[in-house]
Amino acid sequence: MSVLIVGTTALDSIKTPTRENPRLLGGSASHAAVAASFFGPVQLVGGVGEDFPPKYLALYRKHGIDLAGLQLLPGKTFHWSGEYEINMNHRRTLATELGVIETFQPKLPAAYTTAPFVLLGNIAPALQHSVLDQLRRPKFVVADSMDLWINIALADLRRLLKRVDGFVLNDSEAQLLTGEDNVFVALKKIHKLGPAYVIIKQGSHGSILSGPKGHFLCPAYPLPAVADPTGAGDSFVGGLMGYLAAAKGSVAANIRRAMVYGSVTASFCCQGFGVAATTKAKRADIEKRVKELAKLTQF
Amino acid sequence: MSVLIVGTTALDSIKTPTRENPRLLGGSASHAAVAASFFGPVQLVGGVGEDFPPKYLALYRKHGIDLAGLQLLPGKTFHWSGEYEINMNHRRTLATELGVIETFQPKLPAAYTTAPFVLLGNIAPALQHSVLDQLRRPKFVVADSMDLWINIALADLRRLLKRVDGFVLNDSEAQLLTGEDNVFVALKKIHKLGPAYVIIKQGSHGSILSGPKGHFLCPAYPLPAVADPTGAGDSFVGGLMGYLAAAKGSVAANIRRAMVYGSVTASFCCQGFGVAATTKAKRADIEKRVKELAKLTQF
Repeated sequence: MSVLIVGTTALDSIKTPTRENPRLLGGSASHAAVAASFFGPVQLVGGVGEDFPPKYLALYRKHGIDLAGLQLLPGKTFHWSGEYEINMNHRRTLATELGVIETFQPKLPAAYTTAPFVLLGNIAPALQHSVLDQLRRPKFVVADSMDLWINIALADLRRLLKRVDGFVLNDSEAQLLTGEDNVFVALKKIHKLGPAYVIIKQGSHGSILSGPKGHFLCPAYPLPAVADPTGAGDSFVGGLMGYLAAAKGSVAANIRRAMVYGSVTASFCCQGFGVAATTKAKRADIEKRVKELAKLTQF
Repeated sequence: MSVLIVGTTALDSIKTPTRENPRLLGGSASHAAVAASFFGPVQLVGGVGEDFPPKYLALYRKHGIDLAGLQLLPGKTFHWSGEYEINMNHRRTLATELGVIETFQPKLPAAYTTAPFVLLGNIAPALQHSVLDQLRRPKFVVADSMDLWINIALADLRRLLKRVDGFVLNDSEAQLLTGEDNVFVALKKIHKLGPAYVIIKQGSHGSILSGPKGHFLCPAYPLPAVADPTGAGDSFVGGLMGYLAAAKGSVAANIRRAMVYGSVTASFCCQGFGVAATTKAKRADIEKRVKELAKLTQF
């Protein structure tokens, strides 16, 4: 089955202690769609401006990503520039130029409205609602978000949490949302806001799932070097949803392995700037790392 | 087989955001010995002063800990007082009164000199050397340490690393020792200093083993509340060495499970002040959590 992914389709200019990379393909939907494409068909919903490089459209197509839901809008593509500190764990935003994303309204092609698996990638909660409004009985909907929306659109976000099956956020966002420092207490509080599945991402420490079948502690794939962690969280949830959509059986039965596949896909993301390393990976490379993770955690 | 444990035997006064607890049983050797005692016989090497409460000697004995190597010295017991921040991840030392530990010299009773498993718990590297000097061909020696010794006794510590089979430290200490922020690069650098087994502790994120058979990612047991993390690292390595000493088969075959047992023992330590919660745990409680951890990480 295919997975529908909405989110930002952006250009990222990323500075790290060792390199500068201007106008890379970025945005939550781009990272998630490339990650999901390893497992099955992907329908992309987003908006780009007139400056969006054709080579990035070609890159989406190379991954078999359906672009019928990608709007080409008058104006400039959303552009984010940021800088990572030496240990790659903290980033600061240098500039955010919203461009076309300021007025973007998702419009689902008719063929998208029956999508069974839906990833509401990180974008304004109002737009995530708009996508949900256009869908007919999706089977499994997961939302991602970020601190910005918790700070400026909390009411929208809380309403959204009552409409989704799963919610993914990182540990600092979980703390911001719940006021709880302990991740297991925060998980309980987030369930009370709506979602049956809650996943808290912890970067190089892996991620934690809380769902109807209890908890799962998902490892991160060990990396001796991180080139650029931008988009790792989007790759994680994109890989997770791509795997779930492609797998036979219930979500409950598959979600642990889906998280491991998401985790491994994210590990490739971290090894290059933008989507550079993710696009170079092959499905066989992903399978190899999943097997390695199984060995690394066995006792 | 029995495990010999050297380290500090101390009194800890611990402030947390919610409680104050004066003069608890503390010290690296106390926490490690109580943890190791779940699995088999423990020989304790340390020194306490005239003010050491008899109830703590009784507590050691209740755990079957052999006290022939515990010296009762003129003066006061080593006393540490510290304060934890609200999230329990950062602590600061309020006062350190060395007392008898300043002049303490470990003296091994004859029966201890043939100990097969040896834990050189956190104490001055010179004293860890002294214990090694008194031992006859131990089978497996693991050292623990702390930032203080990396800062003020680095030459002694580096000499020690050439004499031990395993070394345990936390992630910030690994960074201090190697100058490497990436934990997998730090592990490689520490192997070059001597030990065949290196374990990096990451608190609530678990721990990582690097050994002749590759890496193992060891989970931490999920805790919805932490009362006092003091001694958790000592409990971890104490449980690990206690399990290894008691298990049949080679260290290489048992060390992953030993880490999981150490991790679970440390989880009990975190749930009470000092050794309060560890001493209340039963072997069956430990087995239950080990089984839970297996389920929590399966995919």
